[in-house]
Amino acid sequence: MKVSELGEFGLIDLLAEMAGGGQDEQLLIGIGDDAAAWKGDASIQLATVDSFVQDVHFPSGIAPWNELGWKALAANLSDIAAMGGAPRYALVSLALPDNTEVDDVTALYTGMLELAREYRVAIVGGDIVSAPLVVITITILGSTKDRDKHILTRSAAEPGELVAVTGELGTAAAGLEMLTKKLQFDPQATACLDRAFLHPYPRIAEGQLLVDQGVKTAIDLSDGLISDLNQICKSSQVSARVEIDRVPIEPIVKAQFSEKALELALSGGEDYELLFTARAEVIDKVKRAAACPITVIGEIVAGKEGVTLVDSQGNPFNLGKAGWEHFITR
Amino acid sequence: MKVSELGEFGLIDLLAEMAGGGQDEQLLIGIGDDAAAWKGDASIQLATVDSFVQDVHFPSGIAPWNELGWKALAANLSDIAAMGGAPRYALVSLALPDNTEVDDVTALYTGMLELAREYRVAIVGGDIVSAPLVVITITILGSTKDRDKHILTRSAAEPGELVAVTGELGTAAAGLEMLTKKLQFDPQATACLDRAFLHPYPRIAEGQLLVDQGVKTAIDLSDGLISDLNQICKSSQVSARVEIDRVPIEPIVKAQFSEKALELALSGGEDYELLFTARAEVIDKVKRAAACPITVIGEIVAGKEGVTLVDSQGNPFNLGKAGWEHFITR
Repeated sequence: MKVSELGEFGLIDLLAEMAGGGQDEQLLIGIGDDAAAWKGDASIQLATVDSFVQDVHFPSGIAPWNELGWKALAANLSDIAAMGGAPRYALVSLALPDNTEVDDVTALYTGMLELAREYRVAIVGGDIVSAPLVVITITILGSTKDRDKHILTRSAAEPGELVAVTGELGTAAAGLEMLTKKLQFDPQATACLDRAFLHPYPRIAEGQLLVDQGVKTAIDLSDGLISDLNQICKSSQVSARVEIDRVPIEPIVKAQFSEKALELALSGGEDYELLFTARAEVIDKVKRAAACPITVIGEIVAGKEGVTLVDSQGNPFNLGKAGWEHFITR
Repeated sequence: MKVSELGEFGLIDLLAEMAGGGQDEQLLIGIGDDAAAWKGDASIQLATVDSFVQDVHFPSGIAPWNELGWKALAANLSDIAAMGGAPRYALVSLALPDNTEVDDVTALYTGMLELAREYRVAIVGGDIVSAPLVVITITILGSTKDRDKHILTRSAAEPGELVAVTGELGTAAAGLEMLTKKLQFDPQATACLDRAFLHPYPRIAEGQLLVDQGVKTAIDLSDGLISDLNQICKSSQVSARVEIDRVPIEPIVKAQFSEKALELALSGGEDYELLFTARAEVIDKVKRAAACPITVIGEIVAGKEGVTLVDSQGNPFNLGKAGWEHFITR
């Protein structure tokens, strides 16, 4: 069987089973969540790695190198945000073609360092290798704020909880559409979409706020709402109903992409917002404490259906497309 | 300027300068050593990452997938060995073509897990992405055995110290020659060279032994003796003289590669032995305590010449080739 037949998630499940948890008593979370977690002496330690491949994760020539650096680091920091932790150190492995301009590599680092300094992350190591195409792999090491903090996992969702998101969805995917199809919008819309796709801000503070308010379950929206919510359902062995009319969509996306806006919001991915579940009273506390919009979009229910979309009348809604998974061609 | 003109080491220096040490008071070692190091609560924490690119680090079709997994992990563990630490957790990022066989990926993991279990390392996370060619990126997290242990760095070598290596050199490069050129040797030689290239054992115990015996300076031999010793010279602002007749070469390599054996040993790379410097009395203690051969091959001297090779009469010896550096075509 080819990996394209099994798919990214099937392959991860297979390899996770092979790796097992082992007999490591300190290990809290192994393969299969946003980050690995283990008990440190004064806090829970977190580690995550992600690779960005030219022409797969970023179309050549669309993202300036500094934005590529910003975005690659942001996507990794977002995994730490989804655990409710604080990032601390980054290791950067760069695979680069021989004819890459040194100025482009320093621009890449300039973008990474801009974000790193804003979030007090130090780039402390890495690796540079020759390759026919650009691959950027970033490892982030972090921890909970202190020993008494729990972490956010994908596996603690329970029927009766509500499903909520930070911010607005679909903007990054709309930005990618704009850039790849060279769509022309007014300056405000252009800037908004450009920034959403190229310059996302990981929700580090919000992840920690979720922990403080008692939320247990979260994931960051990298693959798309449906796909990522499905991960929570699978890990927690529950299902979820999402009311499509409640999904928060940036007005600019609604205005410019009318009929396509919902699809961008449901399966576009790369928004790096946090998707979380909690009882209504906990979500009310989160809403009061958070500086960004918090929107309830559905609920966790029992069963094995995974994610069901419903319209405002409660009727099933079929989108046809479910989010981003590597290797699978839809 | 292209990265091929600046070279891997020049680019690392440039990016290290950009990243800086920052104001992180816990950070002990940033970019530029075998691993990053920072003060943990009960020990010094270590982290390292390395990428392996198809057709750059491993010729397609030569290494069975399980050996590829073993070797990629071994090379990373070797960086922790070179710091005198103990590895603990691994994160594995795989970039794979869509038509990769699932059985090949599980074989890759089988090889990694075999080594991981032998060294009590747990694979706790990672990432799988689609790409036109195979890239394996492994992050290793580790620590010193306890709070009172120091770490081995590249920057503590001093004139008057001797230069020594564990094991024998050139065997991995000889194995690569045998495999790529399909050379035919007797079964014993074939097995020895095959294993040296495909199935190296990182010198974890030996790295810890060096710490225990008071050694301060070490690097693992990944790029080749001359190149790696040059790294010590650069980081420590010293020079080194290597007596070529003292370099330990596996008899099978001498027998099969006669005139080329020395070049393989001096600049072949991938032996994953430890190269270290210390005063004669410390090296004597290491020799008595170590289970593997320890060979003195030269000395650290003052000056900025870097590595000088001399023959048994003390006359300069010119090899012409200096080791492996990405991007540089020699």
